[in-house]
Amino acid sequence: MKRKYADDSLALHTDLYEINMVQSYWQDGIHNKRAVFDVYFRDMPFGNGYAIFAGLEKIIDYIQNFKFTDDDLAYLRELGYQDDFIEYLKTLRFTGNIRSVVEGEIVFNHEPLIRVEATLAEAQLIETALLNIVNYQTLIATKASRIKQVVGNEPIAEFGARRAQEMDAAIWGARAAVIGGCGSTSNVRAGKLFGIPVSGTMAHAMIQVYHDEYEAFRKYATVHKDCIFLVDTYDTLKSGVPNAIRVAKELGDQINFIGIRIDSGDLTYLSKAARKMLDDAGFPDAKIFASNDLDELTILNLKSQGAQIDSWGVGTKLITAYDQPALGAVYKLVAIEENGQLVDTIKISGNPEKVTTPGLKRIYRIINKHSWKSEGDYIALDWENPQEEEPLKMFHPVHTFISKYVTNFEAKELHQNIFINGELVYELPEIQEIKKYVDENLNLLWDEYKRILNPEQYPVDLSQACWDNKMANIEKVRQQVASLKS
Amino acid sequence: MKRKYADDSLALHTDLYEINMVQSYWQDGIHNKRAVFDVYFRDMPFGNGYAIFAGLEKIIDYIQNFKFTDDDLAYLRELGYQDDFIEYLKTLRFTGNIRSVVEGEIVFNHEPLIRVEATLAEAQLIETALLNIVNYQTLIATKASRIKQVVGNEPIAEFGARRAQEMDAAIWGARAAVIGGCGSTSNVRAGKLFGIPVSGTMAHAMIQVYHDEYEAFRKYATVHKDCIFLVDTYDTLKSGVPNAIRVAKELGDQINFIGIRIDSGDLTYLSKAARKMLDDAGFPDAKIFASNDLDELTILNLKSQGAQIDSWGVGTKLITAYDQPALGAVYKLVAIEENGQLVDTIKISGNPEKVTTPGLKRIYRIINKHSWKSEGDYIALDWENPQEEEPLKMFHPVHTFISKYVTNFEAKELHQNIFINGELVYELPEIQEIKKYVDENLNLLWDEYKRILNPEQYPVDLSQACWDNKMANIEKVRQQVASLKS
Repeated sequence: MKRKYADDSLALHTDLYEINMVQSYWQDGIHNKRAVFDVYFRDMPFGNGYAIFAGLEKIIDYIQNFKFTDDDLAYLRELGYQDDFIEYLKTLRFTGNIRSVVEGEIVFNHEPLIRVEATLAEAQLIETALLNIVNYQTLIATKASRIKQVVGNEPIAEFGARRAQEMDAAIWGARAAVIGGCGSTSNVRAGKLFGIPVSGTMAHAMIQVYHDEYEAFRKYATVHKDCIFLVDTYDTLKSGVPNAIRVAKELGDQINFIGIRIDSGDLTYLSKAARKMLDDAGFPDAKIFASNDLDELTILNLKSQGAQIDSWGVGTKLITAYDQPALGAVYKLVAIEENGQLVDTIKISGNPEKVTTPGLKRIYRIINKHSWKSEGDYIALDWENPQEEEPLKMFHPVHTFISKYVTNFEAKELHQNIFINGELVYELPEIQEIKKYVDENLNLLWDEYKRILNPEQYPVDLSQACWDNKMANIEKVRQQVASLKS
Repeated sequence: MKRKYADDSLALHTDLYEINMVQSYWQDGIHNKRAVFDVYFRDMPFGNGYAIFAGLEKIIDYIQNFKFTDDDLAYLRELGYQDDFIEYLKTLRFTGNIRSVVEGEIVFNHEPLIRVEATLAEAQLIETALLNIVNYQTLIATKASRIKQVVGNEPIAEFGARRAQEMDAAIWGARAAVIGGCGSTSNVRAGKLFGIPVSGTMAHAMIQVYHDEYEAFRKYATVHKDCIFLVDTYDTLKSGVPNAIRVAKELGDQINFIGIRIDSGDLTYLSKAARKMLDDAGFPDAKIFASNDLDELTILNLKSQGAQIDSWGVGTKLITAYDQPALGAVYKLVAIEENGQLVDTIKISGNPEKVTTPGLKRIYRIINKHSWKSEGDYIALDWENPQEEEPLKMFHPVHTFISKYVTNFEAKELHQNIFINGELVYELPEIQEIKKYVDENLNLLWDEYKRILNPEQYPVDLSQACWDNKMANIEKVRQQVASLKS
């Protein structure tokens, strides 16, 4: 590709307004003020009772490599930015602090998932990329977890690459899907990069190449000992399953006949009929793999109809989060330096849900030491220590008249330090550890929060101090607007 | 990031089954047979009357760089593939032919958009990546065109990066959106790579940084002469618009007061009220920019309500194709070499729409030389020449009893040669040329095909020879399955 500029950096993977604002800050001499931004989303995706955070690995990579290249700067010059501003950008690196929940953490709306504390310029410039990463990966991990809730312990394979929204989604979506509950992906590049298991057997094309299922199955079995035959190219029950059985019988112990895959048609009817044919032929252990636009609802329906499916392939609906293809995480300024001190800030909105929660905050999961289930999450100001406040008062952040007191609890802090003064201080776990962490975390939730339809609302409460601070900030703005009118 | 393998190639951006099938072909000695695959989709996205093809630039880049790196091969070895097969992959390059419609082409379901003719191994291995690219980019170009149909000549800015499904979607989606009808993108990296216009001004954070709209607007105006002030941080009508007007008046000719942006609240009510305030203040030329989860339907509604909006920012709903986040393009084998000749192949399905159309085909747009409007598209076998068949019989590919004869037409072939024997023979146009091509193409369509709701169905017809060939192939398979039963 003959391009004017190389795709050699992600520093410009940002909205133009970030650069324009930073230029203003820089010209005004306030670009090095300390600023604190929160990443959070307002609505639970898919109406689910919880979400699963993902994206941190890529964020770390992005932050560590954050640097405007010569091509970036040449392009900005072409856009008309002045040389002295470009000189300033040239040496800019991320030198701030990032605290974040870790991948696989169970999270909820309105929780500050990531807290960025850096110079105003640095913090502003990384907004778009952070949101781009977190929004997608968290969405897919959550969607996969919903599917997992329905499927239980049966294997789920992710194979949405061809329908993913471009290539990054295919690989990072595969990774997030595995975090959320899939056992494997079909995408080999994702396997190579992330060490996640890969799976796949044959497509209809192979049957067509041999013009004959029997021959295609035999040829496949000659090379691959583990055989799952795709049986729906011509006619599943009249041709596909009989040919699979014939090859399995003929080759006997020479192959490991794992089972068959059905990719179209009435999956309930076909799987029941195929199950019977396999059993009658002496293959009661042969598994039936199903795919074809599956998601948690179709799977729930198939199961309720008694479909005889042992293993699930999930593509389009998972990799695109088809029923809700975007998570709306935002990045909001919660404090800014004034005269050497951090001062809280707020954004007001006609929509109460969009009013921000000012100040530096921490999230705690309040775990009941008797039941070892979570009582809810508790958002407190930076200096608070909920562990010492027994009984801990937890009240609903919207309907504040609803409250409860919790005793005998462990307040587990969910943020970890990821970067301190621009240095990475967090060691990324392996993907299997992340998956284990998801399972452990889900065990802390009562089943009522894990239903895929109409789950109970998990309590995410503000501390009294956090709430009072928010009210004080709202009042301040109200007076400011009122003074403008008079 | 400490990774075992570098992300140094896209050759493994493929489903594992492609590699497993190729291994079977290779072991069976048929991997160098000629094979022909078609890329097409079955259903029109969004129920639109047409789609806009995009993705070719990235496909060309992918094909030109197709090569298994040492890390790719090391990973495959880790997965258990034999050394001799890995040696074979090591030298594999794409050496085949690709014919494709070009970017910006108006396309329809069931049309072979891309035709790959290569060795069986090469053609099989590129399936996943081709579909991944075409599915997303075509979807977004089409979605942008729908929005453009409603917006008309008012500017549309794409700014969905933060909600895009990971980073590739943000940049390639921005490019596809510009092809389809947007005038600019907020994503600076997309601007740098693709030479598309970038736009953006300020976020709420900047207002919060100064704790005061008036001061923030002034600071911005000191640096940026072209000013669009964001007016909804605290209170749009009581604070935002008055502050914008105050700064515009105070700075007068020192700035170019382009207008204001409203990003939340009741856009109809607020835009009307703001319009009046701007007019009354002596700024009748100031524009009102609106954003907030807009798509073609919300814009249509806003317009019908008389909203005073001059320019549109479209994010989430466009970049994710929110109402239909996947296009289902498939890649089907239509011919395979037998004894030195290409033999047509077919895939049958219980669902008639899923039965493939065998053989090497070309698409022609049948343009009426009197009206200079298109009569429909005509899918013919490779050897046919519809230009010479006057009157040309066109019949409906499903309801074959519906037909018409067309005279005085130009049969414009839609495929171009992109690769011949692995060599790129096509020169990519600039993005502005592609946009122009879209406009010219849309002019060939009657308005009835361009409605966003319930458009007329554009005729995409098979030639008689193409139809007869399909029927003959179906009959052949039918006999094959029947013979199996007896």
